[in-house]
Amino acid sequence: MLSGMVKTDLKIINDDNGSVYHGMKKDDAGFDKFGEVYFSTVKMNKVKAWKLHKRMILNLIVPIGKIKFVFLDNRKKSETYNKYFKIILSQDSYARLTVPANIWFGFKGMDEGVNLICNIANISHDPLEVIRKDLNQIKMDWSKE
Amino acid sequence: MLSGMVKTDLKIINDDNGSVYHGMKKDDAGFDKFGEVYFSTVKMNKVKAWKLHKRMILNLIVPIGKIKFVFLDNRKKSETYNKYFKIILSQDSYARLTVPANIWFGFKGMDEGVNLICNIANISHDPLEVIRKDLNQIKMDWSKE
Repeated sequence: MLSGMVKTDLKIINDDNGSVYHGMKKDDAGFDKFGEVYFSTVKMNKVKAWKLHKRMILNLIVPIGKIKFVFLDNRKKSETYNKYFKIILSQDSYARLTVPANIWFGFKGMDEGVNLICNIANISHDPLEVIRKDLNQIKMDWSKE
Repeated sequence: MLSGMVKTDLKIINDDNGSVYHGMKKDDAGFDKFGEVYFSTVKMNKVKAWKLHKRMILNLIVPIGKIKFVFLDNRKKSETYNKYFKIILSQDSYARLTVPANIWFGFKGMDEGVNLICNIANISHDPLEVIRKDLNQIKMDWSKE
């Protein structure tokens, strides 16, 4: 993983009528403070990339579907500067991924049904702290991801 | 609605690759403090009922599927004591429902695909603050709901 990332295994409790998926508690690893919870969906084989948050710490959970994430460390002082990290989040080995600020990221839908991310973020949406690049501005063959 | 409930309309932003669904920001109506985020699913025509939280304030959002909720006010000093309130949450008229403590509730899956609730709660899970009743302990013809 990239420096400062935290992957936390989470439980899914199934019963006959449905399931309960753990998300995040205030005393959990990776919890900084509460800013905003929002959801993103991405269709099968579609890519949303690239975005970097200058201040937001992400806590990413995929309770529905399967999503491949690619991260690129943009922090010059980081031990993992300029390194990539790739991970698939889904209900298999269900987990929460805490992502520090100043890391480029993109993601791709891997399931035919709904692919849903829940992000539990430490600040509310602020367009001034988000930087974007077009898909082709960071070298990555998404067709192979 | 029952006394103290707050329904807040939320935005869905669609693009070609997927969507973004608003959830809750720290300055939003109904936000008390952060305790836990978790998810529940309920299958089509299945009912999960009844549960009452003595301290937890719920913030219920249904970003995927469609779910019918039934609430029964258990607060003797409430203006709506012993009254029922029913609502369907889905992506049509997408909204967040804030539910005070001490209200019985149950819910039923209304869609053939995934029906997903996200609850943004003011306290972390504590079995000591939850009371349960069996489905038939509160009169309700769920087959008509």
